[in-house]
Amino acid sequence: MKKSFQLNAKSQIKQTIAIMSSKGGVGKSTVTALLAVELSRNGKKVGILDADIIGPTISRLFATQAKVVGQDGFILPVSSALGIRFISSQLLLDQSDDPIVWRSPLVLDLIRQFYVDVIWGDLDYLFIDLPPGTGDVPMTVLESLNVNNIIMVTTPQDLVQDIVAKGIQMAKMVNKPILGIIENYSYFICDQCQKQHALFHTSDRPSIWQKYQLPLLAQLPLDSALPKLIDSGKIETIEMDGIRQFIQSWRF
Amino acid sequence: MKKSFQLNAKSQIKQTIAIMSSKGGVGKSTVTALLAVELSRNGKKVGILDADIIGPTISRLFATQAKVVGQDGFILPVSSALGIRFISSQLLLDQSDDPIVWRSPLVLDLIRQFYVDVIWGDLDYLFIDLPPGTGDVPMTVLESLNVNNIIMVTTPQDLVQDIVAKGIQMAKMVNKPILGIIENYSYFICDQCQKQHALFHTSDRPSIWQKYQLPLLAQLPLDSALPKLIDSGKIETIEMDGIRQFIQSWRF
Repeated sequence: MKKSFQLNAKSQIKQTIAIMSSKGGVGKSTVTALLAVELSRNGKKVGILDADIIGPTISRLFATQAKVVGQDGFILPVSSALGIRFISSQLLLDQSDDPIVWRSPLVLDLIRQFYVDVIWGDLDYLFIDLPPGTGDVPMTVLESLNVNNIIMVTTPQDLVQDIVAKGIQMAKMVNKPILGIIENYSYFICDQCQKQHALFHTSDRPSIWQKYQLPLLAQLPLDSALPKLIDSGKIETIEMDGIRQFIQSWRF
Repeated sequence: MKKSFQLNAKSQIKQTIAIMSSKGGVGKSTVTALLAVELSRNGKKVGILDADIIGPTISRLFATQAKVVGQDGFILPVSSALGIRFISSQLLLDQSDDPIVWRSPLVLDLIRQFYVDVIWGDLDYLFIDLPPGTGDVPMTVLESLNVNNIIMVTTPQDLVQDIVAKGIQMAKMVNKPILGIIENYSYFICDQCQKQHALFHTSDRPSIWQKYQLPLLAQLPLDSALPKLIDSGKIETIEMDGIRQFIQSWRF
């Protein structure tokens, strides 16, 4: 079942990092985009492969109306204002609300194409934005792509962390190293009275990074200005302290 | 590809409702459970089939440690304190953090078993809690189970609604009626200064229920007390105005 996908000769990638959260809706794609943006600001060449074929958000985050272009049998990625190169199933659709109601083999084949047929060029980092769950797609990406590291995204909620724990166990099963955990929606600060709300902190049980002895890379607030900036196509203007500090402390 | 699954003779179900959101993390499972709880309080017999085989949460929501029991080749569902009968892949696991790293055909076969081999008994309502996306599982459930209605769950965020729109289009493709939309995380009220925050309201674009002319069944707050109650196994004590009003207005 395990089959290794090889990059084409026009793609040289120094490090491939899968962004994973077995739970949906924790902000995985947003975190992926913010990491890419911060690395770009630091002069790194970054690509994003949106492996969430069924529920793609990466091209929406970078607010592009571009369509994918082919070249000599290869696929050219789309570039953001900052020069982040990305590919997403959304770029293939005529109408943005067209559903992709594909059976699993088709989905897996498109991911293979996004990896081997895209001319990624020289990249310092390729992020793979995985769909939720521990099913076909995450398994195929971890087994068949040359993934060097995994970043897990979670929220503080016990129920969410119980599901993210399944992703951690899956990474262990395929012997892929987890760089650490980014906790999203860690707190919310009321802009009127400054009260800090731990919206999703549900118990004093040890967090998954404690339970599995993994580095905590960042804790990010739920900032109500963010969804607005993101939905209006301004993700490349966002600076988040937690993301910046993590990228600065990261030894490239 | 379309194949119809038949209930066994010991299951009589008046109405089967799929709870769907092509986007993960919008609170779909919580909404499913809260609808079931409110209907139970109104004397209805309710079951929940957790079709999110890879990321199951229903048994976690009802805080059960029970394991599934077989009987004469059939499967008995687990019962909550209020008498809600449910089945979930989580009930089959030895360790709660065991990942289910199954390929798609196995997942689909388990859903079939959960529908045809479970002794549901007499039910007024069977809710099918779908996984995120518009892939294999939602397609199979909508095509092969006798689904009478769909309830879509969303948040106010444009980006989320763009993905939920794909689910609406998918329902149209298979000619299944959508009962309406439940909007979750509509607002948050600071308990110190009472400011109401529209956390995920990102634009004044028409909402999907306006765009697709669907009934808005409820708008639910992000209530920071809720995750705590849920994670400590007290979901059957929760009363939410929006849920109660919707159930009361619903002609059974």
